[in-house]
Amino acid sequence: MVLLEFSMSPLGKGESVGKYVARSLDIIDKSGVDYRLNPMGTVLEGEWDEVFGVVKKCYERMRKDCGRISCTIKVDYRKAAKGRLSSKVASIEKQLKRRVKQ
Amino acid sequence: MVLLEFSMSPLGKGESVGKYVARSLDIIDKSGVDYRLNPMGTVLEGEWDEVFGVVKKCYERMRKDCGRISCTIKVDYRKAAKGRLSSKVASIEKQLKRRVKQ
Amino acid sequence: MVLLEFSMSPLGKGESVGKYVARSLDIIDKSGVDYRLNPMGTVLEGEWDEVFGVVKKCYERMRKDCGRISCTIKVDYRKAAKGRLSSKVASIEKQLKRRVKQ
Amino acid sequence: MVLLEFSMSPLGKGESVGKYVARSLDIIDKSGVDYRLNPMGTVLEGEWDEVFGVVKKCYERMRKDCGRISCTIKVDYRKAAKGRLSSKVASIEKQLKRRVKQ
Repeated sequence: MVLLEFSMSPLGKGESVGKYVARSLDIIDKSGVDYRLNPMGTVLEGEWDEVFGVVKKCYERMRKDCGRISCTIKVDYRKAAKGRLSSKVASIEKQLKRRVKQ
Repeated sequence: MVLLEFSMSPLGKGESVGKYVARSLDIIDKSGVDYRLNPMGTVLEGEWDEVFGVVKKCYERMRKDCGRISCTIKVDYRKAAKGRLSSKVASIEKQLKRRVKQ
Repeated sequence: MVLLEFSMSPLGKGESVGKYVARSLDIIDKSGVDYRLNPMGTVLEGEWDEVFGVVKKCYERMRKDCGRISCTIKVDYRKAAKGRLSSKVASIEKQLKRRVKQ
Repeated sequence: MVLLEFSMSPLGKGESVGKYVARSLDIIDKSGVDYRLNPMGTVLEGEWDEVFGVVKKCYERMRKDCGRISCTIKVDYRKAAKGRLSSKVASIEKQLKRRVKQ
């Protein structure tokens, strides 16, 4: 499985793009793919086609009314790994023997 | 203030790099700069020099025993904005009128 | 059309990953999708499915013998825009009224 | 030395941000730090403080008249490596035994 973090914003819609981000979150939240939202992006976990399918849905929705879109994506594939939305942070805390902010 | 998300990993230290990430988290956690850890990176909030100062400290520590390092950084500057480590996600939830996963 | 820049590397295969990057370039070069290689990644131009199809092919090849893969992608969609692999740099030079390094 | 690729754009200044990118290129080109411009960003080569100094100058200039700025940065540090603005692409071509597009 892969972890995929992405953020997608329109250019030319002013400084505040929260409305467009909320629409993407709605798509993500209803997709059935597990995710975590953070202040700079959303992290999805699933198979390659699943997670990229969600990103594409967000893109298709956004281009309906946005003439220019910027999107950054980061993928971390690890063979046979699952449940890393929780386990990666937990593993760091275990090594540090204390809680960190999340 | 800016939000800065980054992740930093060594190449050539095997598939598991959690030990190096934990060392960076230790530096971040003790820096006094506010942050949130997520499964794909850490988001810092502060002035430009503050947040990039933390990234550089992590880099200086890592290059002591790593011959190759890869680092991705994303910055979101917004004039006069503060407290966005919490407010960005809260704003999305307000627009969607429901909770999302974080 | 979109511009998509990406870079993809295995973790756990040592510091030198040029062999794996060369394999990806071979796939890209034979894909028929237009591209430009730079020192930090490859920029593709095409429709969403075309360019992401190439990225996926590189991923499928790499995971055959790599247990962990890291990939960063940046997308710039602009409605009705074409030929931007050349025109974006040319436009900067025109505005500066001089040549820049590329 | 490090290779650093970055791109920096204002939000809220319309779809066409070439004017702002050209201003950054002017700063980069006059900085004395070696670089290559590509359709999705600019790659700098130098010591950590040198290349991040250039990014900061671009940021300082842009925030004079932009209320929101988005910036992505990717760093590749390799001990004792120099001249990689040219050598990374050359090495790929050598392995493939043919020229690629750049």
